[in-house]
Amino acid sequence: MATNMYDAAYALQKAITENPDFQALKASYATVQADPQAKVLFEQFRNVQLELQQKMMQGQQITEEDNAKAQQIVMQVQQNQKIAQLMQAEQRVNVLIGDLNKIVLKPLEDLYGSLA
Amino acid sequence: MATNMYDAAYALQKAITENPDFQALKASYATVQADPQAKVLFEQFRNVQLELQQKMMQGQQITEEDNAKAQQIVMQVQQNQKIAQLMQAEQRVNVLIGDLNKIVLKPLEDLYGSLA
Ligand SMILES: [Ca+2]
Ligand SMILES: [Ca+2]
Repeated sequence: MATNMYDAAYALQKAITENPDFQALKASYATVQADPQAKVLFEQFRNVQLELQQKMMQGQQITEEDNAKAQQIVMQVQQNQKIAQLMQAEQRVNVLIGDLNKIVLKPLEDLYGSLA
Repeated sequence: MATNMYDAAYALQKAITENPDFQALKASYATVQADPQAKVLFEQFRNVQLELQQKMMQGQQITEEDNAKAQQIVMQVQQNQKIAQLMQAEQRVNVLIGDLNKIVLKPLEDLYGSLA
């Protein structure tokens, strides 16, 4: 039984790599990586996101400066077609992974749900 | 391809429900549920865990009282054989789900890792 479980997991892994949405995400990343301007902008955007997340998780105040900085980078990012495409591709893959997670983890959800 | 992906996800779901560790977890839960004393104690333990987690996430101080309360419940829980078995079963299933997650999400890890 354990073998079947891992076989099923590897089959799902393979299916994800072959999925059109995942392949589009890979291509979008490569496109951003190949454009130095887009690459730097995207890294800045990620860093700002990460900083805000960490501040919130540590219960720190988000300052007006933080917000202004975030808004400025979001505006720049929105105007960059390659990054916009990458973010849409990420969104689609996130939805897909969320759907798969719901299916795979349903046995656990049923178990915990039945005890609520 | 999308069909294969969801088929693979449902196959993995089915394999988890049939897995001996998952079945042991289910049985351990039923055993705790059927014992009113163990059931209440386990719920208290879960609530204390949740409270501490929330405090930490909100950046609030964990007080000495919090710690004393947590330690007291942990001691009681450790002395309850049915809960101890349940927690061991949960641990095994958590490891198993972690392993499956690593396998399934490897395509994404490879993608993001290659950009680090
Ligand atoms: Ca450009
Ligand atoms: Ca008892």
